[in-house]
Amino acid sequence: MAGELMTAEIAEQPRTLQRLLDEGSGPIAEVAAWWRARRPRFVLFAARGTSDHAALYAKYLAEITCGLPAGLVSPSTTTVYHATPDLTDVLYVAVSQSGSSEDLVASVRAARVAGAHTVAVTNDPTSELAAVAETHIDVRAGTERAVAATKTYTAELLALYLLFGGDPDRAAALPAAAAATLASRAPSDVAARLRFASRLVTTGRGWSYATAREAALKLMETSYLAAQAFSGADLLHGPLAMVDGDVPVLAVASPGPGGAAMAPVFTRLAERGADVLRVGPHGDLPVVLDGVPDDLAPVVEILPLQRLAAALAVARGGDPDRPRGLAKVTSTC
Amino acid sequence: MAGELMTAEIAEQPRTLQRLLDEGSGPIAEVAAWWRARRPRFVLFAARGTSDHAALYAKYLAEITCGLPAGLVSPSTTTVYHATPDLTDVLYVAVSQSGSSEDLVASVRAARVAGAHTVAVTNDPTSELAAVAETHIDVRAGTERAVAATKTYTAELLALYLLFGGDPDRAAALPAAAAATLASRAPSDVAARLRFASRLVTTGRGWSYATAREAALKLMETSYLAAQAFSGADLLHGPLAMVDGDVPVLAVASPGPGGAAMAPVFTRLAERGADVLRVGPHGDLPVVLDGVPDDLAPVVEILPLQRLAAALAVARGGDPDRPRGLAKVTSTC
Repeated sequence: MAGELMTAEIAEQPRTLQRLLDEGSGPIAEVAAWWRARRPRFVLFAARGTSDHAALYAKYLAEITCGLPAGLVSPSTTTVYHATPDLTDVLYVAVSQSGSSEDLVASVRAARVAGAHTVAVTNDPTSELAAVAETHIDVRAGTERAVAATKTYTAELLALYLLFGGDPDRAAALPAAAAATLASRAPSDVAARLRFASRLVTTGRGWSYATAREAALKLMETSYLAAQAFSGADLLHGPLAMVDGDVPVLAVASPGPGGAAMAPVFTRLAERGADVLRVGPHGDLPVVLDGVPDDLAPVVEILPLQRLAAALAVARGGDPDRPRGLAKVTSTC
Repeated sequence: MAGELMTAEIAEQPRTLQRLLDEGSGPIAEVAAWWRARRPRFVLFAARGTSDHAALYAKYLAEITCGLPAGLVSPSTTTVYHATPDLTDVLYVAVSQSGSSEDLVASVRAARVAGAHTVAVTNDPTSELAAVAETHIDVRAGTERAVAATKTYTAELLALYLLFGGDPDRAAALPAAAAATLASRAPSDVAARLRFASRLVTTGRGWSYATAREAALKLMETSYLAAQAFSGADLLHGPLAMVDGDVPVLAVASPGPGGAAMAPVFTRLAERGADVLRVGPHGDLPVVLDGVPDDLAPVVEILPLQRLAAALAVARGGDPDRPRGLAKVTSTC
C-alpha cells in the first residue's frame, strides 16, 4: 500500500515520545549536566534537512530558555572552505537521524579540534556521528524506514527540549496530546483541496516557525509541490507579493506569543486575498494541545502536516514511501 | 515606463561600488579597527529580507576570513519572547537599507543592554538604527526608490566585506567587472523562456548561496513566481524530489571551491531531468569576474539576476517598481 511505512511511523509517535520520556530523560539530563558544567558561551547547531528544522527549534530554546546566543552552522565553511574558527567556549550540537552524514561527521571532528564541546543527537547510537562527538543523545525512535522522516523529527525536538533546560514534567502531556491530535479527523478534505495545487506557502512565528519549515519540506519530498516556508515576519518582507487567491497558505498558530504575533500576518494575507488554511487548535488541520506548553507545541503541531503530506502524495497517485530521486541517507560534502 | 526605477538603480551599481570604495573604505576601516580592538568571540547578524542575504554572506566572511563563529539572529526571540541572552564578547551587526525597521532597532537596543558591541550597516546615516548602535557604516548607495532593493544589496555586500577583513585592493576590480557584466547580453531570452513558469529553484554553494537566496527573493517580489532557494547541499536533502523537467533551476557557480562543490549537484539535477540555467562566467546568465576573487563574486553574480527579475516582471505585464502588496519599508515586530 502506498505510504504504508510513513503512515505507520506517523502513528507510532505517541509511543516513541512516551518511550523517550521514560527511558531518555535520565540519560539526556546527564548530557545536559555535562554541557552546563562546561559553561559554554555560545551554541552552534549543525544539521541538514529535517534535522535542520529540529536544530532551528533548539536555537530558540538556547536563546529563550537558556539565555545563550546561538547559530546554525553552514557546514560548507568547514568542509568546502576549511575555515578554522576558534570554538573555545562553544557548545556544538550536531543533529542527524542516521548519524552517518559525512559532512556532519567532518564538521564535528573539526569542531572538536577547534575547541568546542560536542554533542551528537541521533537515532543510532552506533553511528559514526555518535562516535566522533564527545557526548551522544539517542532519540530512541526505533528504526525509521520511510524516506520522509517523521517520528525521528518529533523525537529530536523532544530530546533537544530536554537537553536545553526543558523539564520532563512539563512534557508529560505530550504523548496523550499527540494521540488525540492523530485521532482528529483525517486531513483528506484538505488533501482534496490541494490536489491540483502546484505551489503553496507555509508560515509560522517563534516556536512554530520550525513547524512551517518542516511542513514545507515534507510536502516537497512526498508531493513534489513548490512549498515555501517563511517566518510570518519574513513573509511580509517581499514574498507576500507573490501570494494571491491562487496560492494556498498553511498558517501555523498555536496559543502563546508566537501565535499572537501572527495576527498582523493574517491581516495582510487577507488583504492579498490569500486562501489560508489554519493549523492549530480548532484549525482546518486541528492540533490538540491540552496540557502542552507553547514551547513544546511544535512536537504536536507537525503531526497533521505529516498526515497531510502522506495523504496528498497518495491523492496524487504517488507513494510517499518512495519519493522520486531520494534515498534515506543523503551524502553531501 | 514599467521598471524604470529598478532598471536605473541596477545600472547605477558600478558607480555606487566605486563610490563606496573611494569614500567608504576609510570610515569602514575605522569601524573594523574598533570591533577588532574589542576582541569579540562571536558574531551575530540581525536583518530581514534582502539585507538578510547580505548578512548570510557576512556570516561566511566572519567564519572563513575572520575565524569567528557566527549566527543569524531570529529577532522574534527578543521582540516576541523577550529573551535576554548574555551577549558579552558578542559583535552584533544589524543590516538594513532603511535603518528604520522597528524590530531591528529594538533588537539592537536589547543587544547593547545585554553587553554586545553593536554595528549598524545602513544606507541612511540619519536612521534610527544608525543612532541606536554604537557604530555605524553608511553604504553610500544614494536614495533607493524602487521597492525591490538592488544597489543597496551590493553596497551592503561590499561594506560587509570591508568590515570583515576584506582588503580594498582586492576589491578594486569590482566596478569594472560589474560594468562588464551589465554590458553583457540582456537576459531577455531567459525571461522569455521563464515567461510562463509558475515556480523555479535557485541554488548555489558557499559564497554563492547568498546569491541564490537573493535571486529567489527578487523573482518573488517582482514576478510573483514561487522561487525557492536552496544551498546545493540542502537541495539534495529532500527538495530534489520535487524537481523534474518542468521546474527550471537557476544554478549559480563561479570559480572557486563553492562552485566546484556544485559538481555533484549538477549531476543529480541532470539525473532528475531538470532544466538548468547556469549563472556564472560563460553561463546562460553571464557574469564577468575578471580580477574579482571568489569571496567577492556575490557582488557581481547577482547583477544578471536582478536584470532577469526586472525583465521577467515586465514580460509578465507587471511593474517591478510597484510590486503588489509591498511598501519600501516593511514594519514587523
